[in-house]
Amino acid sequence: MTRYQHLADLLAQRIEAGLYQSGERLPSVRTLSREHGVSIGTVQQAYYVLEAKRLIMPLSRSGYFVSPRKAMPPVPALTRPIQQPVEFMQWESVLAIANKRRAPDVLSLDGGMPDITQPTLKPLLHAIAHCGKQYDLSMLGYDSLPGLPELREQIARLMLDGGSQLGAEEIVVTSGCQESLSIAIRAVCQPGDIVAVESPNFFGVMQMLQGFGVKAIEIPTDAVSGLSLEALELALEQWPIKAVLTVPNCNNPLGFIMPDERKRALVALARRFDIAIIEDDIYGELAYGYPRPITVKSLDTDGRVLLCSSFSKTLAPGLRVGWIAPGRYLDRVLHLKYISTGSTAMHIQRALTEFIQQGAYQPHLRRMRARYQRNLDVFACWVRYYFPSGICVSRPQGGFWLWIELPGECNAACLNDALRREKIRVAPGAIFSATGKYRHCLRLNYAAPFTDTIQRALQTLGLTLEQWLSEASGV
Amino acid sequence: MTRYQHLADLLAQRIEAGLYQSGERLPSVRTLSREHGVSIGTVQQAYYVLEAKRLIMPLSRSGYFVSPRKAMPPVPALTRPIQQPVEFMQWESVLAIANKRRAPDVLSLDGGMPDITQPTLKPLLHAIAHCGKQYDLSMLGYDSLPGLPELREQIARLMLDGGSQLGAEEIVVTSGCQESLSIAIRAVCQPGDIVAVESPNFFGVMQMLQGFGVKAIEIPTDAVSGLSLEALELALEQWPIKAVLTVPNCNNPLGFIMPDERKRALVALARRFDIAIIEDDIYGELAYGYPRPITVKSLDTDGRVLLCSSFSKTLAPGLRVGWIAPGRYLDRVLHLKYISTGSTAMHIQRALTEFIQQGAYQPHLRRMRARYQRNLDVFACWVRYYFPSGICVSRPQGGFWLWIELPGECNAACLNDALRREKIRVAPGAIFSATGKYRHCLRLNYAAPFTDTIQRALQTLGLTLEQWLSEASGV
Repeated sequence: MTRYQHLADLLAQRIEAGLYQSGERLPSVRTLSREHGVSIGTVQQAYYVLEAKRLIMPLSRSGYFVSPRKAMPPVPALTRPIQQPVEFMQWESVLAIANKRRAPDVLSLDGGMPDITQPTLKPLLHAIAHCGKQYDLSMLGYDSLPGLPELREQIARLMLDGGSQLGAEEIVVTSGCQESLSIAIRAVCQPGDIVAVESPNFFGVMQMLQGFGVKAIEIPTDAVSGLSLEALELALEQWPIKAVLTVPNCNNPLGFIMPDERKRALVALARRFDIAIIEDDIYGELAYGYPRPITVKSLDTDGRVLLCSSFSKTLAPGLRVGWIAPGRYLDRVLHLKYISTGSTAMHIQRALTEFIQQGAYQPHLRRMRARYQRNLDVFACWVRYYFPSGICVSRPQGGFWLWIELPGECNAACLNDALRREKIRVAPGAIFSATGKYRHCLRLNYAAPFTDTIQRALQTLGLTLEQWLSEASGV
Repeated sequence: MTRYQHLADLLAQRIEAGLYQSGERLPSVRTLSREHGVSIGTVQQAYYVLEAKRLIMPLSRSGYFVSPRKAMPPVPALTRPIQQPVEFMQWESVLAIANKRRAPDVLSLDGGMPDITQPTLKPLLHAIAHCGKQYDLSMLGYDSLPGLPELREQIARLMLDGGSQLGAEEIVVTSGCQESLSIAIRAVCQPGDIVAVESPNFFGVMQMLQGFGVKAIEIPTDAVSGLSLEALELALEQWPIKAVLTVPNCNNPLGFIMPDERKRALVALARRFDIAIIEDDIYGELAYGYPRPITVKSLDTDGRVLLCSSFSKTLAPGLRVGWIAPGRYLDRVLHLKYISTGSTAMHIQRALTEFIQQGAYQPHLRRMRARYQRNLDVFACWVRYYFPSGICVSRPQGGFWLWIELPGECNAACLNDALRREKIRVAPGAIFSATGKYRHCLRLNYAAPFTDTIQRALQTLGLTLEQWLSEASGV
């Protein structure tokens, strides 16, 4: 038996015996090295072994902790939204997320920010600087309506990984996925029309539907397999639905990846009822498994799928570069882009093209996938440890969203008020539905590098919820 | 009498005597210097004197030409569009302008490109490069919904010149003026509503109105003083108009600046009929006179004016940074921005802020105003010389658009087909109206530095039109 295995066994026994408590910080590598007369490398190796067994968890700059022992809470059950078209409001709550300047001392677990602190993003800044120095003034001119051809070629190549074989001429560059979705909805709907959506559903899309006078019908959705096709079929039989809007890969907020056969069934259903599919694939490249899941678009044979995506989650939201592959709706999409923003910033398109051509995109994606998965491990571990029992927690297969269902009597809408003094913000579940469902839910963003601050925030969150529940049961 | 005055008189006499013909190239400075035994500086000075008298015209890298003698054609008369709300189509013709990649060998007099070749733009590229090098990765994050506060402060300061005293919090940064206008229209109108517009009117706005299901009523417009307020009042009495949309400063396409008292009357009218005013001030800073004309917004006392503008014409369209000062419609505008693009590229906002803070914006503006005015002199001169008689020509007071009315029997819609072999494109007048008016008009962009190529293009244009007219009269 090697030294490190011996040490690992010894530590495992101590944890088993309760000598190191669940959630407790383990001795530092240096301390153990002195204590056992072994090298630092040996202790590190022993910790790696225990981490692989999920017995202990690493924390950046804080050493290792004993993994919490509580069993993982169950996955949320299939949702049961009201089965009729509804209009959406709650703009005030959404504005609070969209509008606030990120104060440096507030921990924002509510917003959609990816981790933009990684060194693999540096080449992007270099490309931006390089384009400023390198290119002549012509890059300050108007871009053509569909976007820079070189960038569209690169996007077409990236989309091959999702199974779509598209030409650059089938892709339109947009000012972020928000514009892609905004255009896609208007390309297939008129005011008064009905769109089927997952439930819970990204609040940004709900705001769009409301803004364009389009009604949503929320379809029951499973936290593991996605949209209930059975429920969708019933809704399609009952209502004159124009399109279904889905985030099938690394769903926001549930984190599921819709299985391939269900994607196929969805396309078949859309064909049968002759409706469009608006697919939001913004998290598709952040799936933890390899290869990345296929897009619904890749199964589209008659151009009824409008795929929307962007670099906002994979690279950086401040770029405001997204795209749409609108199938048969290309002409309408070009017109809508013209009357929406005209064109997309040229300089950033050039810099992005340079960044991807240099081969810097895939290494960054690989790094982010691994980091988000590790963040999830740690994050879910502490949620399990600190949060009261009776909760349900999603099992994200990619991206950086955790969806938590609290016991029914909790109203998460007041949570941000309760947490104001603690300077923590979470996304209340209520804004993910038009029907007042999900009041007892919340969504947490686990993209940021895990720190003691985040651990403490989860502890505070857990304590607050525990208190609420005991008060509720006391009454 | 100084030597240069003597030489100037001599040359003036020769031009008068027809020794140098109208439109003919004058001897080079060097040749004259040898011929008359005077210094190069003296010849140059003599040419300056003659240029100031508009007897001769300079051409970049081509020396001087004798100014054409024909009298300046008259200004177009007050337009007489059909006085009822109409819907707009003609997307194909607009798409041809918006969508084409600028082939390097086609002379595009049709599009909206400003001159982006001037050295005063260099600091902007430096700022872009500098931001890429300087700033940390945080600038890749989401911007807050209304835009970078530092940039909004700079914009508030710029707007002081137009007479508006606004706080940064009253300004929302957008992805270009196209997004500003798109949001402004939707902030005040529902589908089915009616908006009053100038006639002729920028085709981009007409496309928006059509795209949002809003009808336009085209108001007679004078090429010197702008919107006929008398006609507007009649229309307001007759139709339930929701807003009036105007480009009062350096109008596109007519080039007028609406006199201050008419701006005041417009605001009074809007108040009387309780309608909103959407003001497009994108060319306001390119007025040739000093100080720049006031905005309608500066006369607004109850927040009914939505001012839209951008850096697309003053600096560069590829930046895609505009703004809107929406008055009482701020909340709706923020919601519409959220569901349109979410936010504007952060990096470009930083670079622009740096560029303006450095004091590089005003020198660039001064240069561009002077250049555009000189371009206009030369351009109008050759139009006068080469174009057939019977035309009317606008008298732009800023910006870079020339509006030309041909004799009624010309249909400029076919002009681009006729000019395809010559690789010249102009904007056909028909797309500036929903009612099929202005078929006999065309709009020319004179922003680009004047060259022999442009002179030849105007000659070709003139010849083509001459031929059409003689054929038309022959039939």
